Amino acid sequence: MNELTLHEDRLFPSDPTQRSIARRLYAQVKSLPILSPHGHTDPKWFAEDQPFADPASLLIVPDHYVYRMLYSQGIPLEALGVPREDGGQVERDGRKIWRRFAEHWSLFRGTPTRMWFDHALHEVFGVRERLSAESADRVYEQIAASLLRPEFRPRALFERFNIEVLATTESPLDPLLHHQKLRESGWNKRIITTYRPDPVVDPDFTGFAGNLARLGEITGENTSSWSGYLRALANRRAYFAQHGATATDHGHPSATTCDLSRADCERLFAAVLREESKPDEREQFRGQMLTEMARMSTEDGLVMQVHPGSYRNHNAPLHRAFGRDKGADIPMRTDFVHGLKPLLDRFGNHPRLSIILFTLDETTYSRELAPLAGHYPILKLGPPWWFFDSPEGMRFYRERVTETAGFYNTAGFNDDTRAFPSIPARHDVARRMDCAFLARLVAEHRLEEDEAREVAVDLAYRLAKKAYKL
Amino acid sequence: MNELTLHEDRLFPSDPTQRSIARRLYAQVKSLPILSPHGHTDPKWFAEDQPFADPASLLIVPDHYVYRMLYSQGIPLEALGVPREDGGQVERDGRKIWRRFAEHWSLFRGTPTRMWFDHALHEVFGVRERLSAESADRVYEQIAASLLRPEFRPRALFERFNIEVLATTESPLDPLLHHQKLRESGWNKRIITTYRPDPVVDPDFTGFAGNLARLGEITGENTSSWSGYLRALANRRAYFAQHGATATDHGHPSATTCDLSRADCERLFAAVLREESKPDEREQFRGQMLTEMARMSTEDGLVMQVHPGSYRNHNAPLHRAFGRDKGADIPMRTDFVHGLKPLLDRFGNHPRLSIILFTLDETTYSRELAPLAGHYPILKLGPPWWFFDSPEGMRFYRERVTETAGFYNTAGFNDDTRAFPSIPARHDVARRMDCAFLARLVAEHRLEEDEAREVAVDLAYRLAKKAYKL
Amino acid sequence: MNELTLHEDRLFPSDPTQRSIARRLYAQVKSLPILSPHGHTDPKWFAEDQPFADPASLLIVPDHYVYRMLYSQGIPLEALGVPREDGGQVERDGRKIWRRFAEHWSLFRGTPTRMWFDHALHEVFGVRERLSAESADRVYEQIAASLLRPEFRPRALFERFNIEVLATTESPLDPLLHHQKLRESGWNKRIITTYRPDPVVDPDFTGFAGNLARLGEITGENTSSWSGYLRALANRRAYFAQHGATATDHGHPSATTCDLSRADCERLFAAVLREESKPDEREQFRGQMLTEMARMSTEDGLVMQVHPGSYRNHNAPLHRAFGRDKGADIPMRTDFVHGLKPLLDRFGNHPRLSIILFTLDETTYSRELAPLAGHYPILKLGPPWWFFDSPEGMRFYRERVTETAGFYNTAGFNDDTRAFPSIPARHDVARRMDCAFLARLVAEHRLEEDEAREVAVDLAYRLAKKAYKL
Repeated sequence: MNELTLHEDRLFPSDPTQRSIARRLYAQVKSLPILSPHGHTDPKWFAEDQPFADPASLLIVPDHYVYRMLYSQGIPLEALGVPREDGGQVERDGRKIWRRFAEHWSLFRGTPTRMWFDHALHEVFGVRERLSAESADRVYEQIAASLLRPEFRPRALFERFNIEVLATTESPLDPLLHHQKLRESGWNKRIITTYRPDPVVDPDFTGFAGNLARLGEITGENTSSWSGYLRALANRRAYFAQHGATATDHGHPSATTCDLSRADCERLFAAVLREESKPDEREQFRGQMLTEMARMSTEDGLVMQVHPGSYRNHNAPLHRAFGRDKGADIPMRTDFVHGLKPLLDRFGNHPRLSIILFTLDETTYSRELAPLAGHYPILKLGPPWWFFDSPEGMRFYRERVTETAGFYNTAGFNDDTRAFPSIPARHDVARRMDCAFLARLVAEHRLEEDEAREVAVDLAYRLAKKAYKL
Repeated sequence: MNELTLHEDRLFPSDPTQRSIARRLYAQVKSLPILSPHGHTDPKWFAEDQPFADPASLLIVPDHYVYRMLYSQGIPLEALGVPREDGGQVERDGRKIWRRFAEHWSLFRGTPTRMWFDHALHEVFGVRERLSAESADRVYEQIAASLLRPEFRPRALFERFNIEVLATTESPLDPLLHHQKLRESGWNKRIITTYRPDPVVDPDFTGFAGNLARLGEITGENTSSWSGYLRALANRRAYFAQHGATATDHGHPSATTCDLSRADCERLFAAVLREESKPDEREQFRGQMLTEMARMSTEDGLVMQVHPGSYRNHNAPLHRAFGRDKGADIPMRTDFVHGLKPLLDRFGNHPRLSIILFTLDETTYSRELAPLAGHYPILKLGPPWWFFDSPEGMRFYRERVTETAGFYNTAGFNDDTRAFPSIPARHDVARRMDCAFLARLVAEHRLEEDEAREVAVDLAYRLAKKAYKL
Repeated sequence: MNELTLHEDRLFPSDPTQRSIARRLYAQVKSLPILSPHGHTDPKWFAEDQPFADPASLLIVPDHYVYRMLYSQGIPLEALGVPREDGGQVERDGRKIWRRFAEHWSLFRGTPTRMWFDHALHEVFGVRERLSAESADRVYEQIAASLLRPEFRPRALFERFNIEVLATTESPLDPLLHHQKLRESGWNKRIITTYRPDPVVDPDFTGFAGNLARLGEITGENTSSWSGYLRALANRRAYFAQHGATATDHGHPSATTCDLSRADCERLFAAVLREESKPDEREQFRGQMLTEMARMSTEDGLVMQVHPGSYRNHNAPLHRAFGRDKGADIPMRTDFVHGLKPLLDRFGNHPRLSIILFTLDETTYSRELAPLAGHYPILKLGPPWWFFDSPEGMRFYRERVTETAGFYNTAGFNDDTRAFPSIPARHDVARRMDCAFLARLVAEHRLEEDEAREVAVDLAYRLAKKAYKL
């Protein structure tokens, strides 16, 4: 049996000077409460507080980081229990799924998934042996047994994780019943929603026309007219704000924005509504909607999050068989400099607007994002995201962003996850990597240690609090 | 009070092996004279040798690195004393501007501005306490008092900085009176001009048509004909060369070059002159002018500097209110491989031509610039520039460029600054970072230390001397 | 005289913790046999086993890494003995060429060429003094004398280098006589061919129409019809497979693929055949041919290698004077996400297909290639290639690729070289750099050392064996 350990100096530089500085910085931030202002956990878990089901359906089946890697090595998604769109047969035995995963554990060497998983096994479930084909069943049993205990229910874990605020993400069509229930439950923890309008502002979103009709029903507005549509969107923003939302979230294919005349907007809206639009009209429409959302934010104060650049559902046959979000979203080159210009020309200097930018194109860090955020008062940079939410990704981000944008035009860390047990692991990785980066600056006499201590706390806690108005 | 110190090992790796090598290398280059062959200081300072005004108007008001960061955090440019185009009211009290800046000093943590500023405070002005809201007034007084003393006049500082050659940058329309005065003054220091024709070769430059008319008056050429226009440009090149210029400088939006027939050139020139041109014709015209400048360089031997890729004045409302160069220039993706092809097809193997390339798109280092400079005899790479004139920027540059282009297809360091007191700081950062890079190569047994010593001197002094024909 | 030494810890981090781990890992892989599944050595050398000619014609004249650097500093290719297309006079005295090279040896400081060359001098030829103008003649004599000895013949070196498999690369028009001779010779070493169809699938390839006619003669197929052309290509694939080929190799300007209807293919084929096609039709044709090659691979099991992104023969005058492959190939921005989509839509999940992707655009590592290879079962990533086959290139590759694609979606190392004496050096650099990367992961407690040992062997040997079906 191989022991599973988490080294107390993990992710710190091995150079003794840097490591000792990193340790001192980390000691200050290690136990700070977690702010998770952007993520994809299910509010139902906390509203109902039922035990999580078996280990596989908690940790493998819903995690696209996990099954994309397994799929890349020829393991069919069916064998991992991922449900098919046609309801066809897939593996239902959690133990078998878990074993398959454990047999391929070596695939994850050097990946953040490995670190998150080990952290969750060790810290959340108390596992003390390394995962392997040999240990798979024992580890499964240990987790399965834990999940039955009250201290592993969602709310108990939430409290144990020391989460101060957790944001989920919902469509404007969502009635937010779980958030309502949470609020009424008297539980004293803060779980808030985030307004994610993609299903009703992206004409390429599955069921767009139906979504608009539904939006009309919910709001009592005529969503087949441009002005009614805008009112309906604003109406739902207000509803979301009542349920705690402090932010909106926008996942567009590109960073394109537009600032069209009212007449052009109406024409464009009519075209996308009739489903007669061309691809570039739909792109224009999405771009216009970012500007409309910015305008509404100047009014209601919701912070905008914009994260463009993913080619969604790139694997067409897989998309047909299994639906969205199955690990086949691939980053694309993104142009923020021209893309954001129309929005910035209109609102770039607005005192009430705040936009947090994310990217999947690391080349934009130093070339576009840091210069933009280091100039425009409305812009802040979100943390490294998705594929880059990783030790090397975080290091590269700080190295390429800091010299132009500083630390204070960044927005702190967020975990962006639907894998609830990995939340402490992800924040821990971010805190360690930021301390490691600061330790290098201190060791190379580029920053005094007392200042680095202040920055470490800012990066771990204060910046997110401020940027997301928590 | 926090003490302000400059650690003698700053910017060196903390690994003891590397650090001791870096120290030895740096000892060799530390005191070499400064060559500053590309910059934006004002020749008037040295021609008239009057005391600099107050600390704020010397160190803050003209430095876009400084106020772009402050602006990004919501401080209006007016509050920093940046003059408005409409002559509207702005802060004029240097002490208040300085205090505002000092209150936000933490924004600059981790940025090169912080390092340059600390170096200037410590080395130029003898400040020994860290800048802060609390110390702001004391530091201001100390600098203000210094500026009144003769050893802080421009020429005295120039001598103290051990500058061997300083190049300024002027428009072809500039009569170069300050350079003439300098030459006649008998002062034995070398300040040369650089020929920067953007105002008369870029149809998008403010006042282009008027500039051409003025060019005609100055040179006695008919600048409304293509051939007269070319003669006028050559005429001014000769005038600049008489005033010490060894180089030209070209700040185009892209790396596009063209090599059109004479008839096409005449047509294009007529179109841009009548201000009836389309954007792509203006782009073509700029591209053709780069090739014309290259042709003239094959005749008069002036070294060409080409630095494309900045989206100038990206913030439209700010541009209207405050004019050019207000910190809102944003880098863009740049394509050198296709862009330079027409010029290279014509002059790429010319024995008398030398072109120094700069970029704001770090992705081009390893993909385009190093392969181009590692092949074409006319091409050299300028140092990391503008946003990348920084420790991480310099490290990334050497790491991505050296393996393909070597050290000897690079052109040494230049500071590109209008912040005169920061010149020693900037060269010191470059020398330290190059020594740090070389120290890693030596410590990893990729280069012998005796060779690294030779390279260190080349990078700090000899390469710039040769590349700029100083 | 300066001694030439190869430090036993070269390329390892200088941090003592990391260095000692790297040493332990390297000890395991140092002596593993070399798999060279992708390269450009001449099979004739091994078939005929004649002594190599003089040092210059072995080590300088054919190595574009060497003469591109010398050319970039103004040394004419004629002076280096590179043959002109017009048969014009070039230097023929190997000793003079060698001296010229040695005089400029400092140009290669910090480049991989320097490391490869030093390794070959030291390990292959037993040279113990550093190359310089002063030592040039002595070193030349020593190598020249060695080359006359039987243990320096191609086969003896092959055996001494401990090469298990060496792949060469041939056009489908090549009769593979040397491979046949090798097979019949009874020599027990494995040298295989690779099917490189560029001359018959790229309409921009010199002599394309003639090549197709020749293909028809060789195969007895009517290569002026689409179906005959496809049969001819398949016919030659089978012939290559009989001569050991396990892979095909495709060097296209872009990553574009197409999946057209049969009628469109026939129309397109007719257009390119009549040499009436437009550039975008030729691009489409190449793209379609990649998909056709993929289809054939699903049938015959040959592994596809795709390496797009080089602007071939960028220096037009040099190309006219000296022909192809003269160091003037320049990388270009490459888009895999859209480019590969048509091929992936058709074959992306095929159980018998395997495609190894290479890039000259490092920005695609983290943005496109790792996400694609970390999802699609048919995709693996080739090692850093050409300009990036270097210490920094390899480090950057592992840092940007591993977290998303892991180690097991990469295909091990290959040397891609025509410089036979540099093969051990290149594999040694790769093994050392991979051990250095793994050592950092271990030292930072991101991977256990026992796992790193396994990965080191995978990267040095097993992954290439599996990916290339050796």
